[in-house]
Formats: sequence, structure tokens, C-alpha cells
Amino acid sequence: MSGLSHPPPLTGRVTGRAPVARPVDGHRRRSLAVLLDHLRVTGPLSRAELTALMGLNRSTIAALVTELTGLGAVGEERPGGMQTGAGRPSLVVRTRRDRLYVLAAEVAVEHVSIALIGLDGAVRGRRVAITPAEPTLERVVAVLSELAAELAPAPSPRVVGLGVAVPCAVRRTDGCVRFAPNLAWVDVPFGRALSAALPGLHVVVANDADLGALAEHRRGVARDVDEVVFVRGDVGVGAGLIMGGLPLVGAGGYAGEIGHMSVRPDGLACRCGSRGCWETEVGAAAIARALHVRAKASHELVAAVRGAREAGYGPELEALACWLGLGIGSVVNLVNPSLVVVDGVLQELLLAAPDAVRAALDATALRANGEQVRLARPQLGPDVVLAGAAEVVWQNLLADPVAVLSAVP
Amino acid sequence: MSGLSHPPPLTGRVTGRAPVARPVDGHRRRSLAVLLDHLRVTGPLSRAELTALMGLNRSTIAALVTELTGLGAVGEERPGGMQTGAGRPSLVVRTRRDRLYVLAAEVAVEHVSIALIGLDGAVRGRRVAITPAEPTLERVVAVLSELAAELAPAPSPRVVGLGVAVPCAVRRTDGCVRFAPNLAWVDVPFGRALSAALPGLHVVVANDADLGALAEHRRGVARDVDEVVFVRGDVGVGAGLIMGGLPLVGAGGYAGEIGHMSVRPDGLACRCGSRGCWETEVGAAAIARALHVRAKASHELVAAVRGAREAGYGPELEALACWLGLGIGSVVNLVNPSLVVVDGVLQELLLAAPDAVRAALDATALRANGEQVRLARPQLGPDVVLAGAAEVVWQNLLADPVAVLSAVP
Repeated sequence: MSGLSHPPPLTGRVTGRAPVARPVDGHRRRSLAVLLDHLRVTGPLSRAELTALMGLNRSTIAALVTELTGLGAVGEERPGGMQTGAGRPSLVVRTRRDRLYVLAAEVAVEHVSIALIGLDGAVRGRRVAITPAEPTLERVVAVLSELAAELAPAPSPRVVGLGVAVPCAVRRTDGCVRFAPNLAWVDVPFGRALSAALPGLHVVVANDADLGALAEHRRGVARDVDEVVFVRGDVGVGAGLIMGGLPLVGAGGYAGEIGHMSVRPDGLACRCGSRGCWETEVGAAAIARALHVRAKASHELVAAVRGAREAGYGPELEALACWLGLGIGSVVNLVNPSLVVVDGVLQELLLAAPDAVRAALDATALRANGEQVRLARPQLGPDVVLAGAAEVVWQNLLADPVAVLSAVP
Repeated sequence: MSGLSHPPPLTGRVTGRAPVARPVDGHRRRSLAVLLDHLRVTGPLSRAELTALMGLNRSTIAALVTELTGLGAVGEERPGGMQTGAGRPSLVVRTRRDRLYVLAAEVAVEHVSIALIGLDGAVRGRRVAITPAEPTLERVVAVLSELAAELAPAPSPRVVGLGVAVPCAVRRTDGCVRFAPNLAWVDVPFGRALSAALPGLHVVVANDADLGALAEHRRGVARDVDEVVFVRGDVGVGAGLIMGGLPLVGAGGYAGEIGHMSVRPDGLACRCGSRGCWETEVGAAAIARALHVRAKASHELVAAVRGAREAGYGPELEALACWLGLGIGSVVNLVNPSLVVVDGVLQELLLAAPDAVRAALDATALRANGEQVRLARPQLGPDVVLAGAAEVVWQNLLADPVAVLSAVP
């Protein structure tokens, strides 16, 4: 997202804590938000760098830094990290790591993970649990609540929000999970249940691929790229789209269901009820089938793809790679991204057969669309979705830094 | 587009006439642009209505109206249309039809058409010619120049721009046509050639479906809808996308190549060089093949679809309708629009077999994505693309109304 000039539209959001109203005029509030955003995402910056980045004059930057310092959000120090009170030009402004935290969680098919993340994006602690065998709403909320309590024993006033990634369609307005075949959830009010279980936290529930796209766009390989498709292949296949520098969410928040493009109408039945969806050709079941793996756990599929690669490039891998490139090519024709980030098990396919993926992409995409698109793997690695879950909460809360910071002791 | 707060990003644009710089501050310039935009698109409005629409106070609106009146862009009159000098509350502000014009053109496979369009969107005159049998760049530019000269004998200082719709991929930055199989054009510098042939005009070249989407979003069935897919089926099949209220153009301007989503990898060869593109199942050739029509001119295909409908609903129509619904379903999964506008020959298919189209769409789309999407035909009828071509030029030029209006005698 290009700064905070647009409200972050990603999410199923439920506000647990009402920001305390203070008389801050809109323009200054926005400047404070943008400055804090730069520091949060870019890391420490000198006043001169902030002046150049924000296009404001030096005295305005000084006033904003002073206000954020007073609120405890930032401090000034020598670039090496030593605290100092002097005003030398070599000082840098940086976020204070211990001032505020959010919890970022992911509910996946195999595990539920959660991390405590500071203003600077660093992970302060994490917990992982096995996803309940019958993952009812109550059980998943209970697991998340327990893990959250371990990381941040209540009441923890400095822990201000919880972002949760789920591998499915989420209604933007309230975090309702519309359809999650892996959890057997249909129209489950996950956002509301979490807010009730964890009072005082600003809760956001969002699709995992949307959050991955956000994270790579803010902090990863897609930084400064305005048109990005982030493809996440886990058990299912989904995508997050960044277009014109902003998340493309669609009318209800359900954009990016790339796994359910129809690519083979006479193909296999899909979990969604349709037939011949892209997911039936490149999802976990398809990879397991092609490589003769019985189990479909992600790490086993990753190992199988790596094994197939090391054993020599065979027709099974070739076919999977072709389907991967073909589907990406269709999306490239439709939305003309300049970067496609391939995550999850699918990035192993891309690693194993990059030429075959690229050839199928180029065969499918029109020349104009194909020639400007790069393929990449996530820079943020396995934490990409958690980073996105934290980011979306920060974006919501820090649109008004004064309200949030002045409410926290 | 939601007002003019964002620069219109649609186009291959080439500026022929440099706006005359005048010291107008940014905020007032924007207010003038937004007010003129409301009048242009909505039609006559009272000062009270403008006050409410723009969230400004009455005296500011009065000053803006006075400035635009002085520039000759608007006048005040009784709602019935009679001119008056009095300041009664019943007066309305309206654009002056004779103040400025743009030319809007469409280069299609069969014909080249052009219209002279006023500030209020009304067509003041039009010309049509047969597309040259060998449509070289020089010939097409010559035809357009001749038609333009008939409509607006040069020099016509009040004619300030030319928007041209083409059925192909256009580079946004300079109006270069990247790939137009129907014209046999590859990397043809259409925008630059038009600017050279028609000096003094602000020239924009853009994809026809992108312009159709813009027009329906500004003035038609998609007004006030933020997530729209406009599907145009003529000889080829393309789409224009509006997402978050703004045109989705992609990294190079090539978004919307919906006809080249891969839907049947073992299917027929496509003109693009790939195989099994959606266009091979629902494009003109597919309709002609299915309905046993030898010629593929649009009006003949339209007649054939209507004939098939009247002759009773057969398997040929059913198959075409299924492919139409399937392709729309894939796009609905990917970008989650709330409205899909179906234009060109494809709207006849939708009319002929609405239930089959809808059933195939619902079978392909996930429930969350499918349940909130409506299908519609363009409200602006056959002029939809010309309306978009005019609109994109107005948006470019009237982002600074003072510069443009004060340069015109």
C-alpha cells in the first residue's frame, strides 16, 4: 500500500477497542501516521531522510518526531543503536520495540500458529499447536485464545490487536468465514467469536493469500511494485492481488480465488463442487497424485517435489509445471501484473522446473502481458502470512496513532 | 471513477496541446474539476444540490460557479431550460454545450466511426467509414483525419481532444498498439501518428473494452458500482475492469485480456498463438461455427443468435451459453465483481439463453463470489465505447479546467 493515504481495505475487521477521541486535526494525524509507517516498514531513518521521503519541511518533521516521541512510539539514537539525548545530525529515528505489540496468527489445515510482533515487525515470541482434528469454531477459538494467553498473559495493555489468516473466503465487513473446505466451515462467524473471546483486542480475520500479498508488497520482494499477484499453494490454491499499489479485494472481499478458475471443464471434480478448477491440477491433491505421495501434508509434498527434482526431471514434474505456468498465464492476461510471487508448495514446483513453468506461462500469456512479468518466491519466507496478519492490524490501528498510543499506559 | 481525485490512469495518452499555466492553487483547481465533473456526468444541478454533493459551503460553491461561468464552461438557467440572469433558488447550473468538444472514435474490424461530443456528453455529429481492406497505420490515420475534418473543419479551437478506441492491447504511456490480430498490427505507434496528423488535439488511444467499462461506470448501468467487469465480445473478446471504483489497467495497460484465459488447453488454436483460449469458445468464430453462419460480421452474428433464439432453444445455443457463463464464472472467482456487463455479440447470447449462462456461472463461481454478482447489458447501447473514448479525454483535460478553458477563445 502506498503509505496510509487510503484506509486499508483488506479485511474482515471487528473493532474490540474504541480509539479514544482526541482533538487532532486530520492533516496532522495523517502526517503522524505516514511518518510512523515509514519507520515501521523501512526501519530507522534520519530526520533528513524523513524530510525527503515525506516532502515536508524540517521543522514539521521535528514537530512530528517530538509528538511521536512523547507518545512513546519512537526514539532517537545513534545509527549503531546506542541511546542518546543529543541532537546531532547523525541520529536516527526508530520505532520503540517495546511500546506496542500485535498478535498475528494463522489457522492452517495442519497447525495453528501465533506470534507476538512489535512495531518494527520483529517476532518477539511464537507458539504453534496442532489444528484440532475436528476443527469446530469453538475449538479453534479456544486454541487461539490459549496460545495468545501464553504469549501475552492478560491483561496486556500493550498488545492491541490480533490478525488471523485463514485459507478461505472471508467476508470483509465482519470476518465471517464463508467457505473453508479444509475446516468444513460454511458461514462461520469467526471474527465475532474471536472478538468475544479476546476482549480489548482489535481483531481482523483475512484470507491468507491476501495477507501474503500485503506482506510481500510492504516488506518483501514486491516492495515498490504496484501490480502484484501472490499465489499461495497449500492444500488449496489462492491468490492475493495488489493492483495500482492497493489490495484488490473485490465487492465482498473474495477476490483472488485463482484456484477456482476453470481450466479443464471436463476435468476432475473439485472440492468446491465444480469441475476442472485450476486447483484440481496444481493443488496438493494433484501434486500428491502426480508424484505418488500418499500423504498430503505440506512438508511431505515439499519433500516429494524436491525428491522428484533431484531424481531427475520427469514427465510428472513437467506436467505439473505446465499447469502452473498455464494458470499464471491466464491471470497475467487478465490483470497484467509485473510480478507474480509463488508461495507454498507451488514455489517448490517453480524451483524444480522454472523453464517449464515459464514456457507454459509464455505460451498462454499475450506477448505484451507476458514480457513484463517476473516470477519470484516470497522474500519473507515461511513467516510471510504472519507478517501480513500483523501488518493489516497495524494499518487499521495506526491510521490514528495518537488515539491508539495515548490509550496505552 | 469517483470524481477526479485520482488522475485518470486508463490510457495511451499523448498530449498535443500543453495546458497554459496559470496560478491556480491545487485545492481550488481540484474543486473546480470536481464541480464541472458532477455537472458533466449528472446533468444540471442546483447550487443547493452541488453544495450537498461536494460537502462545501454555499459561498464556496457560488465562487466556483462564478469562476466556471466566467470561463464559459457553465451557465445558470431555469430547470426548464430558459436562460435567465436572476438568482432565484430554482435556477440550475449546467454545462454550456457549445463551449468545448472532443472527438471520440472507434476503429473496429468492419468500420471506423467518429463522433463530435460536447461537455454534456451529447453527440453533435457523427461519421462512419468502412475500415480499409488493408488497414495499414497510414490508411487508418488518413481515414480518421478525413472524418475528423468533416466534423470539425480545422482550425476548430473548441475541439480539444481525440479519444480512439481500438480492439486490442494498447500501451498506456504512448498509445502504441501492441497486438491487434484483427488489424494485423504489432507494436504500431498509433498514438504518436495521430498526434502528428492532428496537431493541437490531446490524443488518447485505449482499449475498447476499457473505455466501455469507463463509460458504463460513469454514465450507465454500472454507475455507483465499485467492482465491475465489462465484457465486450466482437470479433475478439476483451474486458475492462473497474475495481475499487477505479479502472484496473495493469502494469502496462494490458489488463482485461479475458478472451485469452485458458479454458480448454486441448482446444482449438487461437489467433494469439495459444490454444483453447476462452475466445476460441465464445468469440465470433465460435459463434459462427456453432450457428453455421459463414460470415462473421457482427450484425450477421447478432442476427444468427436472434434467429437461433426465435427458432427455439437448441444445443448449439446451450453450449455457447455454457462457455459464456463458465468464463464469466472464472473471472468472478478471481476479482469478485458485483456487476458484469456483457456487451457486443455476447449480449445477444445472454439475451437468448440467460438461464443457461447464469447456471454455468453459478456452477463455476464459488458461492460467496457468485451470489453477489449481477449480469447486465450496457445501458449506453451501441455508443458505449464512443462515450468512453470521449470520457477519458475529458478526464485528462478537465483535471485542470482553468488551463484548458482559458486557452480556448
